[in-house]
Amino acid sequence: MTLKRLGEFGLISRIRARLKYRSGQTLLGIGDDCAVYKPAQGKRQIVTSDALTEDVHFKKNLIPPARLGYKALAVNVSDIAAMGGTPRLALLTLGIPANCPLPYLNKMLDGFLDACAQFKVELVGGDTVSSPKNLFISVTLIGDVSKDRLFTRKGARPGDGIFVTGSLGNSALGLKLLTGEKTAWKGSKKDIKFLIDAHLSPIPRLKESGALSRSKAKITSMLDLSDGLAGDLAHICQAGGVGARLCEDRLPRSPAFTNICAANKLSSDDLILGGGEDYELLFTSPPKDAKKISGLFRKAGSPVSHIGEITARPGEIVWVRSNGRESILPRSQGYDHFKS
Amino acid sequence: MTLKRLGEFGLISRIRARLKYRSGQTLLGIGDDCAVYKPAQGKRQIVTSDALTEDVHFKKNLIPPARLGYKALAVNVSDIAAMGGTPRLALLTLGIPANCPLPYLNKMLDGFLDACAQFKVELVGGDTVSSPKNLFISVTLIGDVSKDRLFTRKGARPGDGIFVTGSLGNSALGLKLLTGEKTAWKGSKKDIKFLIDAHLSPIPRLKESGALSRSKAKITSMLDLSDGLAGDLAHICQAGGVGARLCEDRLPRSPAFTNICAANKLSSDDLILGGGEDYELLFTSPPKDAKKISGLFRKAGSPVSHIGEITARPGEIVWVRSNGRESILPRSQGYDHFKS
Repeated sequence: MTLKRLGEFGLISRIRARLKYRSGQTLLGIGDDCAVYKPAQGKRQIVTSDALTEDVHFKKNLIPPARLGYKALAVNVSDIAAMGGTPRLALLTLGIPANCPLPYLNKMLDGFLDACAQFKVELVGGDTVSSPKNLFISVTLIGDVSKDRLFTRKGARPGDGIFVTGSLGNSALGLKLLTGEKTAWKGSKKDIKFLIDAHLSPIPRLKESGALSRSKAKITSMLDLSDGLAGDLAHICQAGGVGARLCEDRLPRSPAFTNICAANKLSSDDLILGGGEDYELLFTSPPKDAKKISGLFRKAGSPVSHIGEITARPGEIVWVRSNGRESILPRSQGYDHFKS
Repeated sequence: MTLKRLGEFGLISRIRARLKYRSGQTLLGIGDDCAVYKPAQGKRQIVTSDALTEDVHFKKNLIPPARLGYKALAVNVSDIAAMGGTPRLALLTLGIPANCPLPYLNKMLDGFLDACAQFKVELVGGDTVSSPKNLFISVTLIGDVSKDRLFTRKGARPGDGIFVTGSLGNSALGLKLLTGEKTAWKGSKKDIKFLIDAHLSPIPRLKESGALSRSKAKITSMLDLSDGLAGDLAHICQAGGVGARLCEDRLPRSPAFTNICAANKLSSDDLILGGGEDYELLFTSPPKDAKKISGLFRKAGSPVSHIGEITARPGEIVWVRSNGRESILPRSQGYDHFKS
């Protein structure tokens, strides 16, 4: 069986048959001009779109199709988590080259639908079109959030602590390992696998976001790290009209990251400050809630680090090195699709 | 100024600055990880996605960029209209080739934003990424609909009348005129312009859908014509487990369509039955409401035609020619992206 023989409607039928998760909100799913759903009462609706393009965001020979499908949903789930929300319904638009093998497509879709089941998201619609050259995956994810626990980028105030979940730079280093010559990298297989996995199958911090949302801790701003710590912190500073101090020795590094950086003499700062796709949560909270936050994450069995403070100097991010020397980070907005 | 110099964030800033319509439902628009909105109380939410790919759905040299931007929204508005709904919020995802001239992109975006203002839709999010070769435009449109006036494909019953708005085949013939050798076509400039306009700037039947929604007429099924009358009517028959009789001499043709078909000896049936992108509403209603419907459309100053009847023979569409001869239309699901 080929895509040409299966056809667009055959492909859509196959997707419908493979759905594993259905939401109680959905009144009409795939197959009509629109999907119909009933939003949860008393909540705010939230919506995000993120696209992955072949040879821009991924190379077919570097990411297995099931993981690509997973990642296409996971990066959107991360945006919902960044607002303190819960993902509910997805729309998947695929631009598919004529020569895309059907088994590849099936595995990619299975990865996407498995991720839908994992994050309790129902696929309710989208579009499948042909694409002249590159595979194009565009996902829209709709979710909801409590009225009084909506976390946005705007609101950080001087004196607030800056927190980050998990550890940083794993994905950027994983990408380096994937695309570089394998024989040239020193380090244990286990460490290398950990870092590559961080790049290929990022874990959106939905559990941690939910714990913050249910807590009484005041969260003054939050986003997910997709463009690198320096660029994303700049977004928070810009939105709030504030600055920040970032302490090098407080930045969380995984053992695998530390080992591979050391073994290969890589600058870990560049990977952490400029490396994208960590999908960790970056948030700010007043000093009085710092203990509440560490207690909360301890209870959730999830790491969190207090990496710096918000200052009153608009747009200025001061980088405090382990040796005590300070410098101002150059203004950066992170990865830019058209400048890079 | 080039796209490379403007950059992704510059492009997003420009889009934000150009927004002409803002919805009272939106609490947070472009610029955060998600858009946030408050759905209208007591309504059902509806959502659709439709993508346009360069060299598949359009050729840059055949459609001016502003009309491409308009069309990307209009085809989605048509899907919302097909459910009896009102469009509210849009997300726009662009895959942009590095060599796409910034003036082209600006005109396309202006066309999209003008269409947003025209249809009272707020652009609240999306994604802008680079694309290795072809321009890719993916739109998600969120709207709402009254609980008791939701029109779907399913529900047509034997004896129901089949109705269609406007006239048929204009877009398919317009596309033929656009892509064929211009000198070879006979006919008046005015007729040719009318048909090409129907292809480049389809008018979604939002006004007519709204009139049906506010009326007391019973609508048993509805969709918008995007894949050709035969294929789309087959969708209604399949969803309802019914068949149909379609009468050739009742099919609405525009004067321009009739003139150009006659002058160039084209088979008008093929263009009407198989030609796509009419974006007219196709719906069914019990016989008792036929007068109500014609009165309604007369009042709205909008044409509607009663083109046939629903039958009890599942999946069978009988084609009744002007000369009285009958044949069964071959099963077709309309345009297929991977079979064509």
